[in-house]
Amino acid sequence: MSLIEDLNWRYATKRMNGQKVPQEKIDQILEAIRLAPTSFGLQPFSVLVIENEDLRKKIQPVAYNQPQIFEASHLLVFAAWTDVTEQQIDAYMAGVAKERGIDVANLAGFKGAIAGAVERLTPEQRSNWAAKQAYIAFGIGLAAAAELKVDATPMEGFDAVGLDDVLGLKTKGLHAVTIMPLGYRDEANDQLAQAKKVRRPTEELFIEMA
Amino acid sequence: MSLIEDLNWRYATKRMNGQKVPQEKIDQILEAIRLAPTSFGLQPFSVLVIENEDLRKKIQPVAYNQPQIFEASHLLVFAAWTDVTEQQIDAYMAGVAKERGIDVANLAGFKGAIAGAVERLTPEQRSNWAAKQAYIAFGIGLAAAAELKVDATPMEGFDAVGLDDVLGLKTKGLHAVTIMPLGYRDEANDQLAQAKKVRRPTEELFIEMA
Repeated sequence: MSLIEDLNWRYATKRMNGQKVPQEKIDQILEAIRLAPTSFGLQPFSVLVIENEDLRKKIQPVAYNQPQIFEASHLLVFAAWTDVTEQQIDAYMAGVAKERGIDVANLAGFKGAIAGAVERLTPEQRSNWAAKQAYIAFGIGLAAAAELKVDATPMEGFDAVGLDDVLGLKTKGLHAVTIMPLGYRDEANDQLAQAKKVRRPTEELFIEMA
Repeated sequence: MSLIEDLNWRYATKRMNGQKVPQEKIDQILEAIRLAPTSFGLQPFSVLVIENEDLRKKIQPVAYNQPQIFEASHLLVFAAWTDVTEQQIDAYMAGVAKERGIDVANLAGFKGAIAGAVERLTPEQRSNWAAKQAYIAFGIGLAAAAELKVDATPMEGFDAVGLDDVLGLKTKGLHAVTIMPLGYRDEANDQLAQAKKVRRPTEELFIEMA
């Protein structure tokens, strides 16, 4: 399966060479992220696409000076909804009604199911639930990058409050959960470029229930 | 890009036809899940692989009687670590040392980084952090299934405490976070089989930071 080859090719690239990823490839990675499934199809997150050098300068200290912040071609910041509002659910219902050519009134049950699920969660749980949906899309984005032979680094190591502040996310009802730098590996300077991939053995990670 | 075609082909299959997925395809989906990246490479979760009919009978009521529980070929239950112990980190360090042919003593800094990151989290945050890593693998597993033209349903709608109880997860230090039924769509009976896919528009989901 080509995905397995792609996953074996990729690794968490620590050093990149600054080369630009063509816009066409960026667009394909974003499209895969957009198509990722999420709970109820709600997609409770945004993805910030960053190339700007001045903005990278502000991000670097809150991302603990990791070199990919500058060496990457683009940074994708996955930012989950902090809450789920009725307005947001209504906007989604309007989208479903439009795309499927149905009356929004016929979606009352669907709307109620989403609102009910959200209501049962505490504010912290809502924020986490939204973040988990972003992680599904994050996983699919990593697979998309690997298929295109674009390197990517899953990056959780940053000052989340600081990054929210730099990007003005709080007022947008968002909070940063992960960063995906996209670019090309600098094999000469990345000590992990040739390191053997380590994963838990199949018989340990999977539990066959007889 | 073939992943985009695969993602457009897939949908959250609500009705499956009971047909068995060949073991070879199951193995490839599991391998993709195993290769998924996670924070520090720790893979803080297990995946339970379920075919057994008696076990499905016990799962069905805690999964709100969703038909895929019986109509799927296999159920994959993603179960995240409830805590991260020093023993688990040591086991990972031993794996890294063995695979890369290095002395475990040389990994003290890496071990300290993981332990430090974990220590800064509350118990609830640890459990959520582990769950998020499982969601990356969940996303990649969905992409793998789609590449093989195997249908899959991301399923969060279940009584989590009840499912943990049925599967004896608590004593294993695990908690169920998602279910991925794998099988084949029953197009005649699944009203969503022909429904247009709805996703937020590109210009809304992505924020280009100039």
